[in-house]
Amino acid sequence: MLGHHVKQVGLPPGSLVHIGEVKTARPTLSIIDFSPAHHAHRTDVTLAECLAVKESPLVSWINLYGIHDVELLRALGEGFGIHPLALEDILDTAHRPKIETFDDYTLIILKMLSFNDERGEIETEQFSFIFGENYVLSFQERPGDVFNAVRERLQKKSGRIRSRGSDYLVYALIDSVVDHYFHILEKISDHLDILEQRLIEETDRDSLNRIHFFKKELLLLRKAIWPLRDVTIEMLKDESDRIHPDTHIFLRDLHDHVIKAIDSVELFRDTTSSLLDLYMSISGNRMNEVMKVLTIMASIFIPLTFIAGVYGMNFELMPELKWRWGYPAVLILMLTCAVGLLIFFKRKRWL
Amino acid sequence: MLGHHVKQVGLPPGSLVHIGEVKTARPTLSIIDFSPAHHAHRTDVTLAECLAVKESPLVSWINLYGIHDVELLRALGEGFGIHPLALEDILDTAHRPKIETFDDYTLIILKMLSFNDERGEIETEQFSFIFGENYVLSFQERPGDVFNAVRERLQKKSGRIRSRGSDYLVYALIDSVVDHYFHILEKISDHLDILEQRLIEETDRDSLNRIHFFKKELLLLRKAIWPLRDVTIEMLKDESDRIHPDTHIFLRDLHDHVIKAIDSVELFRDTTSSLLDLYMSISGNRMNEVMKVLTIMASIFIPLTFIAGVYGMNFELMPELKWRWGYPAVLILMLTCAVGLLIFFKRKRWL
Amino acid sequence: MLGHHVKQVGLPPGSLVHIGEVKTARPTLSIIDFSPAHHAHRTDVTLAECLAVKESPLVSWINLYGIHDVELLRALGEGFGIHPLALEDILDTAHRPKIETFDDYTLIILKMLSFNDERGEIETEQFSFIFGENYVLSFQERPGDVFNAVRERLQKKSGRIRSRGSDYLVYALIDSVVDHYFHILEKISDHLDILEQRLIEETDRDSLNRIHFFKKELLLLRKAIWPLRDVTIEMLKDESDRIHPDTHIFLRDLHDHVIKAIDSVELFRDTTSSLLDLYMSISGNRMNEVMKVLTIMASIFIPLTFIAGVYGMNFELMPELKWRWGYPAVLILMLTCAVGLLIFFKRKRWL
Amino acid sequence: MLGHHVKQVGLPPGSLVHIGEVKTARPTLSIIDFSPAHHAHRTDVTLAECLAVKESPLVSWINLYGIHDVELLRALGEGFGIHPLALEDILDTAHRPKIETFDDYTLIILKMLSFNDERGEIETEQFSFIFGENYVLSFQERPGDVFNAVRERLQKKSGRIRSRGSDYLVYALIDSVVDHYFHILEKISDHLDILEQRLIEETDRDSLNRIHFFKKELLLLRKAIWPLRDVTIEMLKDESDRIHPDTHIFLRDLHDHVIKAIDSVELFRDTTSSLLDLYMSISGNRMNEVMKVLTIMASIFIPLTFIAGVYGMNFELMPELKWRWGYPAVLILMLTCAVGLLIFFKRKRWL
Amino acid sequence: MLGHHVKQVGLPPGSLVHIGEVKTARPTLSIIDFSPAHHAHRTDVTLAECLAVKESPLVSWINLYGIHDVELLRALGEGFGIHPLALEDILDTAHRPKIETFDDYTLIILKMLSFNDERGEIETEQFSFIFGENYVLSFQERPGDVFNAVRERLQKKSGRIRSRGSDYLVYALIDSVVDHYFHILEKISDHLDILEQRLIEETDRDSLNRIHFFKKELLLLRKAIWPLRDVTIEMLKDESDRIHPDTHIFLRDLHDHVIKAIDSVELFRDTTSSLLDLYMSISGNRMNEVMKVLTIMASIFIPLTFIAGVYGMNFELMPELKWRWGYPAVLILMLTCAVGLLIFFKRKRWL
Repeated sequence: MLGHHVKQVGLPPGSLVHIGEVKTARPTLSIIDFSPAHHAHRTDVTLAECLAVKESPLVSWINLYGIHDVELLRALGEGFGIHPLALEDILDTAHRPKIETFDDYTLIILKMLSFNDERGEIETEQFSFIFGENYVLSFQERPGDVFNAVRERLQKKSGRIRSRGSDYLVYALIDSVVDHYFHILEKISDHLDILEQRLIEETDRDSLNRIHFFKKELLLLRKAIWPLRDVTIEMLKDESDRIHPDTHIFLRDLHDHVIKAIDSVELFRDTTSSLLDLYMSISGNRMNEVMKVLTIMASIFIPLTFIAGVYGMNFELMPELKWRWGYPAVLILMLTCAVGLLIFFKRKRWL
Repeated sequence: MLGHHVKQVGLPPGSLVHIGEVKTARPTLSIIDFSPAHHAHRTDVTLAECLAVKESPLVSWINLYGIHDVELLRALGEGFGIHPLALEDILDTAHRPKIETFDDYTLIILKMLSFNDERGEIETEQFSFIFGENYVLSFQERPGDVFNAVRERLQKKSGRIRSRGSDYLVYALIDSVVDHYFHILEKISDHLDILEQRLIEETDRDSLNRIHFFKKELLLLRKAIWPLRDVTIEMLKDESDRIHPDTHIFLRDLHDHVIKAIDSVELFRDTTSSLLDLYMSISGNRMNEVMKVLTIMASIFIPLTFIAGVYGMNFELMPELKWRWGYPAVLILMLTCAVGLLIFFKRKRWL
Repeated sequence: MLGHHVKQVGLPPGSLVHIGEVKTARPTLSIIDFSPAHHAHRTDVTLAECLAVKESPLVSWINLYGIHDVELLRALGEGFGIHPLALEDILDTAHRPKIETFDDYTLIILKMLSFNDERGEIETEQFSFIFGENYVLSFQERPGDVFNAVRERLQKKSGRIRSRGSDYLVYALIDSVVDHYFHILEKISDHLDILEQRLIEETDRDSLNRIHFFKKELLLLRKAIWPLRDVTIEMLKDESDRIHPDTHIFLRDLHDHVIKAIDSVELFRDTTSSLLDLYMSISGNRMNEVMKVLTIMASIFIPLTFIAGVYGMNFELMPELKWRWGYPAVLILMLTCAVGLLIFFKRKRWL
Repeated sequence: MLGHHVKQVGLPPGSLVHIGEVKTARPTLSIIDFSPAHHAHRTDVTLAECLAVKESPLVSWINLYGIHDVELLRALGEGFGIHPLALEDILDTAHRPKIETFDDYTLIILKMLSFNDERGEIETEQFSFIFGENYVLSFQERPGDVFNAVRERLQKKSGRIRSRGSDYLVYALIDSVVDHYFHILEKISDHLDILEQRLIEETDRDSLNRIHFFKKELLLLRKAIWPLRDVTIEMLKDESDRIHPDTHIFLRDLHDHVIKAIDSVELFRDTTSSLLDLYMSISGNRMNEVMKVLTIMASIFIPLTFIAGVYGMNFELMPELKWRWGYPAVLILMLTCAVGLLIFFKRKRWL
Repeated sequence: MLGHHVKQVGLPPGSLVHIGEVKTARPTLSIIDFSPAHHAHRTDVTLAECLAVKESPLVSWINLYGIHDVELLRALGEGFGIHPLALEDILDTAHRPKIETFDDYTLIILKMLSFNDERGEIETEQFSFIFGENYVLSFQERPGDVFNAVRERLQKKSGRIRSRGSDYLVYALIDSVVDHYFHILEKISDHLDILEQRLIEETDRDSLNRIHFFKKELLLLRKAIWPLRDVTIEMLKDESDRIHPDTHIFLRDLHDHVIKAIDSVELFRDTTSSLLDLYMSISGNRMNEVMKVLTIMASIFIPLTFIAGVYGMNFELMPELKWRWGYPAVLILMLTCAVGLLIFFKRKRWL
């Protein structure tokens, strides 16, 4: 989780080292060039082709799947004049979401969240974007289909996206990522509802583990989503000319979505706390019930057993033993005791 | 709850899709035109009639019940020059309350709260307002009587409302919604009082479930009411000329009411936390009492039973068994034990 | 508690409706006119007399006991040119403390707190002040002696108060109210000390109820006192010329007192939380002790009873029963068992 | 604790009344005059001598032990032109630490903290300072040696203090007070460490009371120290010319110390909370252990006792009773039961 | 922990006294002079050599291991014109991390954290830096290898570091320290994971002590790391010309790392709180289980024992005893009882 700094201690700042799991075998590059009138999608291109687009007047979107090839990244970075510190941040897959404005380009780092149904966990993948005058570089740890909808919109001539610049494209990409957050949040919402239903029926260890699990996942979600708020605010306040005023209304919309996601995370955190309280209370309640049963059983039978014990003593001189109605009398005494105690417990509302 | 984003992933921003339950069969439009001297109320009008009011010098209030007819909304929006993102927000019934100022109009989204007595739950409905120079568009998910009082005031010539513009009308509409919040808060207040009374008498599972229920409802209320604070502040700071200075005093009053509602929600949240603490403490107390009864009963009778057991042994040589006063002596011994223990418990203040 | 809005739903803003209990039979007006050289106190005056003072060059303080006579209030308001929204706030006895500056006058609303010894509760009464160039209107829900000291100071020629304007008079009135808060706080402080003493001796249900009661009362106190902080800050920042610079030093002093009251409320809130923790811990401790007694008694006697039970069996062939020293041997065995267990418990430090 | 307001209700603001315990028999005044070249220390001087120093070009430090002599204070105040509200604050020994800048002088109020070893409590004493162009008035509730080090430094010609003005002297005095705070904090730190050690060994009522005690003391400390932060910030931002720029570096150092003290108080508050959690958990753990012992003992012996009871029944026809190996068989059955249960508990890891 | 103030009470501000453990036998000085073309590393130099570098046009880094030699420090400080208050702060090893800008130099104090594997504790060491136009003074409490990587980079001609000034060197040094924080955080992260795993299996006292231990360590870490945030912000806002604009991008990177470290500390704090909740809940759960076993065993056997007791009574007239099927009938009765109770417990889902 903190991989970056552990690996890199002792290296000068800006040293490029990939940190984190290698999630794809071979890094692949693809380019989409577009203008209102033009659209070309080339996959699996070479580095040289990528660097060539800088000269093109079209807007170019270069996407890289797999960021562990440090040399490739360095070459790409040098080609586009990216500062080594920016590349270092991209390579550090444990980086915090952030935006940083450089002279000629802006770096945005954020987290893609997906729910791994097999392992029942939320997985995070780091997405980074660098955008300049008329190019966007996007970096993903592994191939994925998150941006396919954006690609389709670029392909269709009709959409707004073709007629806008790199800033709108970046907005559209971030928007795709944020939209995916709501899938995760929806899933968590469902799971919490189920958990609550189940809690009311049963307070087993498994419910407790699940509450604890959601608390942990929500801490991670929060860490991934909160900083995005600053990213969108920063974009809205952007003072470079890279973000066109027409894009502002969309960024405000994006900001709304981020706030909505944050609100949901906070709501879920409150909900899990509330579920834990509920668990503890129900659990305490159950204990109470168990204790009551024990107390009632023990309190009723212990005195009776004592009475039976008394008349089980072997003293030679116990006159009651010889009385004709001794046995029935004792049985009646016992019954009286038991009924008395039952009434006592009834009064205490334990029954 | 998070419907919007889940449905819309992959669509470009500004795509109009209705999200949420369809709450009315057929969308209906109505228009009220008014000026100090004039007042006309037309119900169930056509789209064309609505668009026609734009040319009128009167102030027009167009209300739409039922927002699921996307085409109707799009046509209305286009007619009034509303940005697709604004319409998208109106269609997303899970949107956060907000205000957004566009060049020619202002969009306000808020939540109507009502208490569904049948299901014992708070229901939220989204109300949206768009107001420009001399028109107000209001959007409700289903027919309702929340605005009837405003309609009546418009009808009566005497009121202040006829002589003011669209800004005052919007204020009056929001004020009606906020006034309704206090109904809900009043109900919650009553329920919490009852719950507290009941807790003192009994700590059953049902009380616990109700505390948990109110905690959840209050989280939702809070999510619905808090953002309104920013809405009213934003209206007071409005820099477009759409809000007349004379309306400020009313907006300040509205702001006061919103703050009062927020204060109440926070107070109720503190109260439910406090009730949960009380529940846990009372419950712990009860447990204590149960344990004391068990301990007293068991501690008194177990030693006695033991004594009885000793003299129930069948050894041939147990001299006590043959003593003349053996039996009474043992009974006295038992009594002494019991009294001794009772005194001990008395001293410990368990009795 | 939320009376205002519940009653008024559907009415246009500025409609005058009295909300809350009617606390006095007949509203009464009184006037004090003063200047450095002059002082006149007229009680039970008519509305006309009140309106007449507007022309007078003296500073006039008009006090109204009983605010439920809406017509009287309206007439008074109109006479002094008060905005209906201001009057509406005065009539709403559940209003939040606030200050609002109008063109010609300033409205201040605050809460008088008093301890009702009979019902053992804190009672709040709403006091409102409107002050303009050379008049002060004060509104109380019922007759009371809170302002008597101010009246006496006005009567005595020597005091500073006679030579100052309406702003200083308002300051003096608010100061009287805030001074009364410390009575309540002092009482709560005493009660909390007593409660703490008692907790150490006993953890009964009553202590718990009292802790809960103080938590609730402190929530109310806080709601009444916190907003005063904004009132005094607002007065210090006042931009109308109604507050004379010479009064600032007194307002700063008042502000200090308000902060002190808030600090105390927060301290008491921390203290009650701390008392609840203490209650829970002591209660848990007691439970522990109860359980230990039970465990010790049961653990010692249950095995002994078992041994007795064994030799109470009726098998024909139980050689021990016939041994000469069988009985004493068993008694010694039992004693050994008991002593062993006692040592075990001693080691565990349960004894 | 809230003495001031309770006593003074009804009095006009600025009325001088001493509030709090009278801590010294007779108020005594002392004067130190100094300049780089001069130093004179006169103790037990008269009021007239004090007032005379105003004319002197030297810097004069007048110290008053015992503030209950209201007349003396009033005369001193009038002599130096101090506003009655400032004197009122000095007399109110329950005042909040604060700084207030008047036209000709600055008032600083703070709390001296000392640990009363006898009563095991932290005691607070109020210190007030008024400093003007070339004089410092200091007010203490009783004689003490806190400022002796400052007096010595004044006496020695070599120190920096002689060549500076009243602002540096005030800094030096406040610095002495703040330095004393660390004694208290060090003591609390030690006590908390001891308490933690003890908790691990034993969870008795006394530990609980001590945790509660420290929580309360820390609330008081916090109330005494936090406002000092504002005092030092205010001094650094001072806009009168009374604080020389050269003193700023020292005030920044003082501010650092205050922040350090606040940090420690907050750390200790977190620590006591943590200790309470620990107490509760250990206590719960102990309970668990007690319950396990009870359960194991009862669960093993109750069934055995039952078996013994069965063969203690007096039915005429119980064939087992006559079997030759009946008794040993039953003993073996009992042993099997017991061993089986022991294995069960072992598996559950209760043993 | 609060050593400084305790020792120094009574001394004038700026008195140099070493506070804290003496961690090295003999203080040693070393100098590195460098320029893009030059590099010289002299170890164990004399004070005179150090003072000589001031005249040199090269950038000089003077490092001191062991700060307890007050005289040496004073001489060094005087040589470089350092204010006594700055030296006092360096000598106080319990100082809070801070930055303070003086006219000719800047003082930065921070904490080195290292994990002492033997004592299983986090140790803090204070590092201080003073940097001026072309020199950097660094102060460490004992020899260590934290800065070796920086030294190596200085030695290699190729690196960026040789061509930059003292500001970049200071950045590189702080960066080394912050990089080390992540080692500690990584270790804590691992320990918390292990602890969580273990909790799920077992809730013993040791786990509890470890949770408590991490809570305490995290409080200390937080105290050491949080203030660094202000240090980096202050450096970025620096208004002296000592920090070159080219260094800003590196400081922003450093700031990111500090924020990341703070985020991790806060996450771990949330995690430990969550673990404590888990511990309490699991512990409560275990208790519940224990109670259930006790209740089931007792509830089943106590009534049976009572029945056996009844037929163990010695009354002469107990007809059942003589019945032929009496014994088997009673056995069946007992079995019925037991089965009935088992079904009851099954229904209650206790089995």
